[in-house]
Amino acid sequence: MSGKPLILITNDDGVLAKGLRELSDVMRLFGDVVVVAPERPMSGMSTAITVDQPLRAVKIEDEEGYTVYRCSGTPVDCVKLGFNELLDRYPDFVVSGINHGSNTSVSVLYSGTMGGALEGCLHGVPSMGVSLCDYDPDADFSRAKMVVARIFQQIAENGLPHFVCLNVNIPKGDLRGIRVCRQAAGKWVEEFEKRTDPHQRDYFWLSGYFKNFEQDHDETDLTAIENGYVSVVPVSVDMTCYQTYEYLQNWKF
Amino acid sequence: MSGKPLILITNDDGVLAKGLRELSDVMRLFGDVVVVAPERPMSGMSTAITVDQPLRAVKIEDEEGYTVYRCSGTPVDCVKLGFNELLDRYPDFVVSGINHGSNTSVSVLYSGTMGGALEGCLHGVPSMGVSLCDYDPDADFSRAKMVVARIFQQIAENGLPHFVCLNVNIPKGDLRGIRVCRQAAGKWVEEFEKRTDPHQRDYFWLSGYFKNFEQDHDETDLTAIENGYVSVVPVSVDMTCYQTYEYLQNWKF
Repeated sequence: MSGKPLILITNDDGVLAKGLRELSDVMRLFGDVVVVAPERPMSGMSTAITVDQPLRAVKIEDEEGYTVYRCSGTPVDCVKLGFNELLDRYPDFVVSGINHGSNTSVSVLYSGTMGGALEGCLHGVPSMGVSLCDYDPDADFSRAKMVVARIFQQIAENGLPHFVCLNVNIPKGDLRGIRVCRQAAGKWVEEFEKRTDPHQRDYFWLSGYFKNFEQDHDETDLTAIENGYVSVVPVSVDMTCYQTYEYLQNWKF
Repeated sequence: MSGKPLILITNDDGVLAKGLRELSDVMRLFGDVVVVAPERPMSGMSTAITVDQPLRAVKIEDEEGYTVYRCSGTPVDCVKLGFNELLDRYPDFVVSGINHGSNTSVSVLYSGTMGGALEGCLHGVPSMGVSLCDYDPDADFSRAKMVVARIFQQIAENGLPHFVCLNVNIPKGDLRGIRVCRQAAGKWVEEFEKRTDPHQRDYFWLSGYFKNFEQDHDETDLTAIENGYVSVVPVSVDMTCYQTYEYLQNWKF
């Protein structure tokens, strides 16, 4: 057992994704790395868990300070299995990504990348999810890796509050800096493309575009990204709306 | 077209679950009902969406003011399809459940029931998820139905803030009242049961028990349930931790 920190890594693009390998390369500079990642793509899996099926995990790489498992489950399943079954000691950090594509605004709710990070901080460990705003499977992660190193060093130095993780989004191309942000309000619109199969039955593909309700709000993640800044949003597992909590006290049940 | 409100219903136990039928029975007292529910159980699916597969939805019941679709997707997919493709007008409310089993504390993050409700409020419509703390497929929903009617009437009368929905949990047995609560802090521990298949390969079943970090905090949903009260937690789609947002401004990036 080394005295180095142990870093658990997962993602939602699957164990073969370039972004995962790039993330592992960075994190190995800072400690021992165990990757537990889905064996197939799990985009949009949110904090989903596998309840009705058993899970499998198979070790596919094993060298000094670096082990990789492919897992049949979701990103959250991967993190749970890592903590409970696969790792020989409690990890010090959980890092999820680097996702191929952005996870800004309310996409935090759908993101499997952020699912992995949220599960990490539910286990009481400083955690972050990282996404590059570039869907290309062969995207250039060179700038993203420097950003990850910089933010990780801050986390290692300062820690993070319990039950809070970071949602880091990195714009494509040149970077103007790093901004701490809040999650922008927005929604996906016109979400389906209807087609008809050869048997004359309809089916639907999820599609559409994202509508930002807060144009030009500098403190939001979407505006940061639009202006070439990395966005860092602290994300809480406590979803209680405290303002509404006060308001509801007056309801007559 | 009737002048009644239109209520979109989904769940995560699937279109055949008793809780869904019981919920539909109540909601039909208040308006026209369209059910769009998963064709198979989707427990633990959180706010997951289906990205890599097309979706199907088939109408299986159709009478005056009451239509039921079974859908191949998750609860969130069901709500998205309802809003965008299946309903002939914009619904006035989204109600998800009644779940067979509790969705208190951080289980809000894993719950497919709450996934459906969160998606409803992302569409700007007052929404709630309802769970009965009884996993029995043939559970007694008679008290739960009265609770749903009572809370729904309050929602219809007062509305809900944008991007906030309600997480309603109902204890089994006699009820002492309804309490507005915040989400308790807690976590699942000892989460897997390891088994070996006939080919000597390991597999893992998700299991374990829930640990409440906030015993006797009357304002939490877990304590409300333990004491026989219905818990109503307002849940926000904005997951930003604003306290940490301030704290992070001092980090040196």
